Amino acid sequence: MGVSAGDADVLSQVPMAKDRLGAIAREASLWISVGGHAEAPEAGDARVDNVHFVFGPDGAARAAYTKTHLFDASTSSGVLRESAHTRPGAELVALRGTPVGTLGLMTCYDARFPRVSERLRFEAGASVLAVPSAFTVPTGAAHWELLMRCRAVETQCYVVAAAQWGDHGGGRRTWGHTMVVDPWGTVVAQCGEGADELVFADICDSVISRVREAMPLESQRREDLYERDSASLRVLGETSPP
Amino acid sequence: MGVSAGDADVLSQVPMAKDRLGAIAREASLWISVGGHAEAPEAGDARVDNVHFVFGPDGAARAAYTKTHLFDASTSSGVLRESAHTRPGAELVALRGTPVGTLGLMTCYDARFPRVSERLRFEAGASVLAVPSAFTVPTGAAHWELLMRCRAVETQCYVVAAAQWGDHGGGRRTWGHTMVVDPWGTVVAQCGEGADELVFADICDSVISRVREAMPLESQRREDLYERDSASLRVLGETSPP
Repeated sequence: MGVSAGDADVLSQVPMAKDRLGAIAREASLWISVGGHAEAPEAGDARVDNVHFVFGPDGAARAAYTKTHLFDASTSSGVLRESAHTRPGAELVALRGTPVGTLGLMTCYDARFPRVSERLRFEAGASVLAVPSAFTVPTGAAHWELLMRCRAVETQCYVVAAAQWGDHGGGRRTWGHTMVVDPWGTVVAQCGEGADELVFADICDSVISRVREAMPLESQRREDLYERDSASLRVLGETSPP
Repeated sequence: MGVSAGDADVLSQVPMAKDRLGAIAREASLWISVGGHAEAPEAGDARVDNVHFVFGPDGAARAAYTKTHLFDASTSSGVLRESAHTRPGAELVALRGTPVGTLGLMTCYDARFPRVSERLRFEAGASVLAVPSAFTVPTGAAHWELLMRCRAVETQCYVVAAAQWGDHGGGRRTWGHTMVVDPWGTVVAQCGEGADELVFADICDSVISRVREAMPLESQRREDLYERDSASLRVLGETSPP
């Protein structure tokens, strides 16, 4: 769980990489969660899918989630338009029955949109959110740890965020800092900067239970107030300044 | 904007405090956002309302929001059951036409529930979220800055979080650290620990615009995937571990 892709090029020749990753999972008898690119299935569409795969210890792909929020943004290191070469996914995905319970699958920029982790936790019952990522250096320095910790705190899940790092040419550099956060928001494992490292962290059911019992966010949610366009939002005042 | 209540006792004799705060706003010709307790209006109900008032420079109460998420939780400093003596509010509230644009009203524990700030920003069009708070010391040390910064980053709003601090007897101590966060998540003003202080911060339309244009989260939201109980969440795998 939480293997970092190192360099996305490894995954760009996809069927091979997917087979290879399944073989690694089988040989090592490990569950592997990993993000990478896969050819879009439709002929004539040159775009790829940004897919988060989970392989079981038998080498089979148990789940595949196609990233739903694409990174089209300007940062101090340049403009990236992921949507120019990537198809957006059409559904959220969770996987029950892993050794760490129900796994919520996310990818990178999804972490800025709290509705993703919310559905994975409060509908699918996730205990761990896996978020393979390739944050840019400016957005990583500003927001990487903040977003991963906050998603953990508000869902009371572990967040396992494997992160690509390095220089990918054309001015694109990634932030790294692979991180495991516990449900109280504590960073329990983290890779250093600019080095190939492997980190290990325990996922403890007892920590999840303790945090959720002490602060029962799930039962305290006010679903009666959350529905978009419902009357439970009152907007007062003038439309222009007085 | 962002006056800290100092000690909630000031606000516990409510009608008087409310009149006094209105008078202060009028005399100083200031907008004031402030949280405190108000008597519940129904006879025979001993509970209070936890109300966030906004007074205009004419002294009139322009908006009142009753806290919707009550703090019932155990922390390392003890158990608090706000619901035992406080009525939950029934609606979210935003106020248009203030000098800083549309103000989203929140209170304290609401900040753990991202749906509140989401509706204030993406439906009511808030540019500033005001969050008067009284975090406990353990939850404040763990999560105060994290939550306020993350709510700012994911809504691309300023967050103005006035925070009670001090020892309130019975083992209850509050965290303080009144904070203003800009839409990029930068803490632009903060009170120190354990002192009565006043902080000032500029709310800049140009910062809001720049952040929102560089990373257009509003248009990148995937409303098609967010609806509860909709088919756009796929849950795979077994219900129990293999």
